[in-house]
Amino acid sequence: MIIGELINSSRKAMRTLIETWDDAAVAEVAKLQADSGADYIDINCGSFTTDEPKRLAWLAETVRQSVELPLCIDTPNVEALKAALPLVGEKQAMINSITAEKERFASILPLVCEYKTKVIALCMSDEGIPVGVEGRIKVADKLIADLTAAGVKIDDIYIDPLVQPLATTNEGALPLLNAVIAINDKYPQVHCVCGLSNISFGLPKRKLINRTFLVQAAFAGIDSFILDPTDKQLMGALFAGEALLGHDPFCGRYLMQYRKGLFNE
Amino acid sequence: MIIGELINSSRKAMRTLIETWDDAAVAEVAKLQADSGADYIDINCGSFTTDEPKRLAWLAETVRQSVELPLCIDTPNVEALKAALPLVGEKQAMINSITAEKERFASILPLVCEYKTKVIALCMSDEGIPVGVEGRIKVADKLIADLTAAGVKIDDIYIDPLVQPLATTNEGALPLLNAVIAINDKYPQVHCVCGLSNISFGLPKRKLINRTFLVQAAFAGIDSFILDPTDKQLMGALFAGEALLGHDPFCGRYLMQYRKGLFNE
Repeated sequence: MIIGELINSSRKAMRTLIETWDDAAVAEVAKLQADSGADYIDINCGSFTTDEPKRLAWLAETVRQSVELPLCIDTPNVEALKAALPLVGEKQAMINSITAEKERFASILPLVCEYKTKVIALCMSDEGIPVGVEGRIKVADKLIADLTAAGVKIDDIYIDPLVQPLATTNEGALPLLNAVIAINDKYPQVHCVCGLSNISFGLPKRKLINRTFLVQAAFAGIDSFILDPTDKQLMGALFAGEALLGHDPFCGRYLMQYRKGLFNE
Repeated sequence: MIIGELINSSRKAMRTLIETWDDAAVAEVAKLQADSGADYIDINCGSFTTDEPKRLAWLAETVRQSVELPLCIDTPNVEALKAALPLVGEKQAMINSITAEKERFASILPLVCEYKTKVIALCMSDEGIPVGVEGRIKVADKLIADLTAAGVKIDDIYIDPLVQPLATTNEGALPLLNAVIAINDKYPQVHCVCGLSNISFGLPKRKLINRTFLVQAAFAGIDSFILDPTDKQLMGALFAGEALLGHDPFCGRYLMQYRKGLFNE
């Protein structure tokens, strides 16, 4: 599953569009992502600290009217979630994100249940971000146990093992990848999701690293990515990887994506 | 380990160089591969059916004099191996390749032992090329047992699980990748090796598929590749993949390769 990440106020151009309430331009970005293969459209205006609820509600309304895709509401701000969730339409929305931090978990869980959303659950607790394989699995265990106990369907849970910058580790992405393999073995119905750009922070040729990590992450069992679907080289790595992993018998989908021009070499 | 594949008479330009005994040009191609990061230089003139031994000996001599790297002698022709092996110099050569086919195994094994070479062992027997995970493991078992019984050191063995075209399968490369994972688990000292170009046969954007497969294969445990080291995008995928898999703490090698211009995005 591809969650289009372009409608995010941390991107300079998008910040301006949101600042000026430019609904036509925001709608265009939503459509572009839909045409490029996105399955969900993420909306985030977290940098508008004073009126995030109002702006997030406007983004939800704008995107819902412009594309057929469901929304991924990206904020830890409960008031902003409460403002946006009633506007998501009939398709099952996604909340991005809950964590195992006591306060955040308690404040966001009722909204996941009320709106029956999918939910991204970050591997992070009041002890911080876990290091190593076991630490990640332990937080995932807790998140999955507590969410399902509250009635969230197990296949509505998307565990995000939290990508750390490659340049700051001496084991690379291996602990994360091995944690994903273990979580998938243990909970075959749970999904795993991640963003890509953190991995390459501080290194040259960032897109190369993001793309290479995507291929490894998909092999390890991450089935959902928060990414820029208009990046045709990134999409090429995703589509080729899917075909190689046997998810596209005889490459029928790959050939169709090729004919549609959805990716580049 | 990178085995440079450019000196091969199945490539049109190289065929002409070999046909005209152009040792200066062949030496240039060897140097180019060495400068691009190759660890071994493959030499193959199999399309010269009438005088392969003479031409392979000339290639061995030419390449040995032009670079410091060891040679990978690429032929199933015993006479050609006998002509080239005495000329490989002091560095440990590699024979490409033996198989589990009775006749080929019996004819090539004595040369592996006499010259104490590394050896690429193709997963192929008199029953043909195995399909599925178990079939590949069974042939690898036999190859490893018979080679080590004959005195070949286990870490001189490079199992090639034989890449089949993606477009002709409905399980993608997954059986091959899973076989590699199993072989590595069972024999931690054995190496796995493969070529890349077969995987993309018959599909558009072949380099994308080759590159994506390389990243997955390295993740599964293939540690040696027969490839074109002057393909900077391919090398980028290799180097980024290595860093992500924790083989390059804090990305020191990646940064050095970047500064040397050895790869592109």
